[in-house]
Amino acid sequence: MYKVRFLPMEKEIDVLEGETLLEVIRKAGIFIDSPCNGNGTCGKCKVKVLEGKVYNSKASKAITDEEIEEGYVLACCSKVIQDITIRIPQESSSAMYGMKIESLVGSKKREILKRAKDQVLNYGMEFVTYVRKDYIELSIPNKHDNISDVERLKRHVRKTLGYTQIYFRLPLLRRIPQLIREADYKVTITHIPRGMGKTTIINMEIGDKTSRLFGVAIDIGTTSVSTCLVDLYSGELIAEASSGNAQMKYGADVINRIIYSTKINGMEKLNHAIINETINPLLYKMYQDAKVSRDEVVSLVAAGNTTMSHLFLGVYANFLRMEPFIPAFVKAPFIKASELGIEVNPETFIYLAPSVASYVGGDITAGVLASGLWTSDENVLFIDLGTNGEIVFGNKDYMMSCACSAGPAFEGGEISCGMRATNGAIEKVTIDKTTYKPTLKIIGEGNPIGICGSGIIDLICEMMLTGVINRKGRLNKDLNTDRVRFDENGIGEYVLAFKEEYNLEKDIYITEVDIDNFIRAKAAIYSGVTTLLTSLGMDFTNIDKLLIAGGIGNSLNIENSIMIGMLPDIDRSKIAYIGNSSLMGCYLTMMSEDARRKLEEIANQMTYVELSLEPGYMDEFVSACFLPHTDINKFPSVRERFEKL
Amino acid sequence: MYKVRFLPMEKEIDVLEGETLLEVIRKAGIFIDSPCNGNGTCGKCKVKVLEGKVYNSKASKAITDEEIEEGYVLACCSKVIQDITIRIPQESSSAMYGMKIESLVGSKKREILKRAKDQVLNYGMEFVTYVRKDYIELSIPNKHDNISDVERLKRHVRKTLGYTQIYFRLPLLRRIPQLIREADYKVTITHIPRGMGKTTIINMEIGDKTSRLFGVAIDIGTTSVSTCLVDLYSGELIAEASSGNAQMKYGADVINRIIYSTKINGMEKLNHAIINETINPLLYKMYQDAKVSRDEVVSLVAAGNTTMSHLFLGVYANFLRMEPFIPAFVKAPFIKASELGIEVNPETFIYLAPSVASYVGGDITAGVLASGLWTSDENVLFIDLGTNGEIVFGNKDYMMSCACSAGPAFEGGEISCGMRATNGAIEKVTIDKTTYKPTLKIIGEGNPIGICGSGIIDLICEMMLTGVINRKGRLNKDLNTDRVRFDENGIGEYVLAFKEEYNLEKDIYITEVDIDNFIRAKAAIYSGVTTLLTSLGMDFTNIDKLLIAGGIGNSLNIENSIMIGMLPDIDRSKIAYIGNSSLMGCYLTMMSEDARRKLEEIANQMTYVELSLEPGYMDEFVSACFLPHTDINKFPSVRERFEKL
Repeated sequence: MYKVRFLPMEKEIDVLEGETLLEVIRKAGIFIDSPCNGNGTCGKCKVKVLEGKVYNSKASKAITDEEIEEGYVLACCSKVIQDITIRIPQESSSAMYGMKIESLVGSKKREILKRAKDQVLNYGMEFVTYVRKDYIELSIPNKHDNISDVERLKRHVRKTLGYTQIYFRLPLLRRIPQLIREADYKVTITHIPRGMGKTTIINMEIGDKTSRLFGVAIDIGTTSVSTCLVDLYSGELIAEASSGNAQMKYGADVINRIIYSTKINGMEKLNHAIINETINPLLYKMYQDAKVSRDEVVSLVAAGNTTMSHLFLGVYANFLRMEPFIPAFVKAPFIKASELGIEVNPETFIYLAPSVASYVGGDITAGVLASGLWTSDENVLFIDLGTNGEIVFGNKDYMMSCACSAGPAFEGGEISCGMRATNGAIEKVTIDKTTYKPTLKIIGEGNPIGICGSGIIDLICEMMLTGVINRKGRLNKDLNTDRVRFDENGIGEYVLAFKEEYNLEKDIYITEVDIDNFIRAKAAIYSGVTTLLTSLGMDFTNIDKLLIAGGIGNSLNIENSIMIGMLPDIDRSKIAYIGNSSLMGCYLTMMSEDARRKLEEIANQMTYVELSLEPGYMDEFVSACFLPHTDINKFPSVRERFEKL
Repeated sequence: MYKVRFLPMEKEIDVLEGETLLEVIRKAGIFIDSPCNGNGTCGKCKVKVLEGKVYNSKASKAITDEEIEEGYVLACCSKVIQDITIRIPQESSSAMYGMKIESLVGSKKREILKRAKDQVLNYGMEFVTYVRKDYIELSIPNKHDNISDVERLKRHVRKTLGYTQIYFRLPLLRRIPQLIREADYKVTITHIPRGMGKTTIINMEIGDKTSRLFGVAIDIGTTSVSTCLVDLYSGELIAEASSGNAQMKYGADVINRIIYSTKINGMEKLNHAIINETINPLLYKMYQDAKVSRDEVVSLVAAGNTTMSHLFLGVYANFLRMEPFIPAFVKAPFIKASELGIEVNPETFIYLAPSVASYVGGDITAGVLASGLWTSDENVLFIDLGTNGEIVFGNKDYMMSCACSAGPAFEGGEISCGMRATNGAIEKVTIDKTTYKPTLKIIGEGNPIGICGSGIIDLICEMMLTGVINRKGRLNKDLNTDRVRFDENGIGEYVLAFKEEYNLEKDIYITEVDIDNFIRAKAAIYSGVTTLLTSLGMDFTNIDKLLIAGGIGNSLNIENSIMIGMLPDIDRSKIAYIGNSSLMGCYLTMMSEDARRKLEEIANQMTYVELSLEPGYMDEFVSACFLPHTDINKFPSVRERFEKL
């Protein structure tokens, strides 16, 4: 037995000789990113050996000679052969991008779901799950009443619950004989009535378990995946968890993922990444937090963009990216959890929110459901800020949608120090106009680790207003501050946090390349909105309400979003940030059959506008690749602010 | 590369150094029994090395030192290291009991199915499969008609075929995008209409494949499994195959199988044995013979006794053998082929003939369907001679059934030289009353290998009539013949074939123990019939027709069956042997929805009589354990014959 000590967490455990460091770290309960799961190929489980030596059990190209010289090893390729002290680097611990699972049930989230529920009730919709539980006491067989177990069950359900046709599938049949006897013929059935006296039994438990009935809602984002566990009786949120989408290692955006899916075993890997590496760990985290067992979870609604929906089901996706951009499906067929290997009750029906087209997916139809746009008399503009930016404009009579490829910048992707809006993320920034020193607001209690979407919007806006950057996004070389610096190629960067300030491993900064990326992302959104409105013969004056959805951060500074030219310069009181509307829509769909019908109506009714076919779209985009825009007259309030400076 | 030569088949192939002999034998296309599939545990793949040496790569307890000394090796534990000549013994080649697949489409079988078909037509039943195929030409997507592949398909099916609700499952969805494009949007769909405008698509093929539509019927016997491949349009038999049930290695009768199923991994092994080791090889043999591909087979009907049905589905079976003998199910739920791993189109619905009770299964309901009993005005006695002997008595107004545990003797089990009714089996025997020399009729063209059920009936009858045995089944010690001999314990045996006569490895004989086993089997049948009739207040005079079913042989000598006291001594013209009625019933069920409904009616209406609860059953059985019976007056024609001797 050897001792392995972990820094910076100051943990120590005893291990047997020959265990791999990856196993040891997992055993210690320390999270480490290991997307290739020990193959030695991804290089993510790098740790630094501070004292002692490890045995290098496997060669790997994922670590450089320089890193080895500095004392780094891959945890998965190293075996313990003596007492050692190792250091888990911040990158490996995966707080940056990775798969760290967040699972606090914030009162905020609870409140959002409650609001969603009230909304459903306000619209006169029924708020009742379609799954039922009933406790039954079967008669005990004897030689005069020796019908089969199944007939006994059916006879009882017919007599006491009134169903005439009772269905179930083989996995349940296999369990019935022992289960009913172990239960002394007193069991709880979980079943799904389908009208006309039909019901399908999907689970059977020993004794009276009618009080426990759970479901999960899942938003499958290209970058982030959010889940919540709900009590299906009360609709109350009892756990939530989110993390990065493990598919990220195969490409940051949908196009790269689709290309990867066409490679040998590509689809299997992508499907495994979303289901086994992302969703299942999130589910188990929630089950653990809420003390719920997998088999008690009998309802599941998920939503994702059209590509995510294809990859989630393992359906060939390549035609999504090829003209004329044809999805394989928009509405998924009937699917059981066991077909996908999702860790809920295996007989659970998987409901996937329907898509509209190749680039307007179920996350948008679910989001529109949650937004209430479909019941509005006024014109509502709905913008989902994600790796793809989708835009819906309409009211209760019509809905137009389009999609613009914004890239992962809003979620911290393709930004040097970008990260998802999770603990350690800088979510708000102000900059002192004389010292150029920033003031940061960080999610959670610790030191900053990186910057999330809402923080970048603030940062760019503040840099622009304080003259750190010009309207092209170029850094000012003439400022008297060490926070602005340039590399040998002349590429500038602004330092948000020096490593000495927070005792970090490296500075947190934003480069001109990052700024360019972000400007292109915001320009895609803005030009999408203008093009969509123009195609309808409308303009910004026709927007009565603007709803922003997406996982960009806990809060979005709307004023700053307008200042940088992402949102149109309209009356601020019309604009609201509604958070993860896709997850809310899943929740509603799970809790209300009326909402589910409405969701399908929305998917059927929504019209898709292909921006690339609209005249003038590219010009709009290019004009918008400026802060706030090449034509500042489109942003009168920004112009006014500039004039005051 | 070494040369391996096989005797007696005089085959030779080249193999690489280090290949196991088992692989080599399989590669040579030579059938060898290997139920443990190379684990070295079953000892069935014994072969004799005549020239050269092999390398013993694995120790095994399944071969004795003596055998090793004689030159035997286990093929699975031996690797080729030089040129060798080996001899495949008759036992290993598995012709005896085993898994040798028989696959000749006899004109006889064809005729039986034709008769079954005519029967259905005579009853005014519709003779049409419920599976449909349609060729469709989809429109090609463009940017103005860019709906999803699924919507395109559904739109077309709605418009051209008139269905309003079109279902399919995930495996098909996964294939659609590439398949329709590869097919240039011209595809054939296989679908199952369910009334009210609904249909479920279970397969899609490139181009017009409407002419090819196939189904399989499977009779799952405790000892033998029979399958046939049918053209679903014409109902014509296009291939057939049968073999032993690979579950035999886990026990000869249902009770032993059930006990085995409760052991660790027991159920998995039994389920694997019937599906992967028995049914799938039979299916592939037929596909090969008929040049049909697996995915073209879209209908499957199977029947087996209640235990076989449970083990086929992997459903816990232990309560079948425990009072009050409760089956888990009598009617199986909806099951897809992919759930069981059966090698037909994965989306094929599996229909399993419904059982009546723990000891009257789907093979009997299917058999009764095929027998026409359900439409008869006269009283019909239906006897299925299998490992379990089941008896049904009734007419179109009522049906009573019971089961008696006959054991595997009718199928050659528990008989020293017993074998299934397949090539090499002695199926008819006469004995010369002065020389005691038998005349044998052998199935197929070769030498005798063993004796099947119909042969044993003849043999026992002839031995009785010629005085070789007495009415207790004991051999006569005073005969002047070397064919009767006794071992050191005084157990006698009669030699049917000396090895020298046919150049066999060993004699073919029957022992007094075998005769006892067989007498108990026939007594079980006879006493079952009398007890059932008595329970109804009837006797043999009430039998208007007696139908014998089962795989006892190609033909059953009815006179001899009466002579030994298996069948009641009634007018011979009332008795007929109808062969494998279970398989015929499966065929009818597959080809006619009317027949399927009738089958379910039969299962619902049949009353089960538990013989062990009937007074006098044991006495009847004991009295019947004689040739023909302790009370010879019950067999007047036998008495008469004896008197003439």
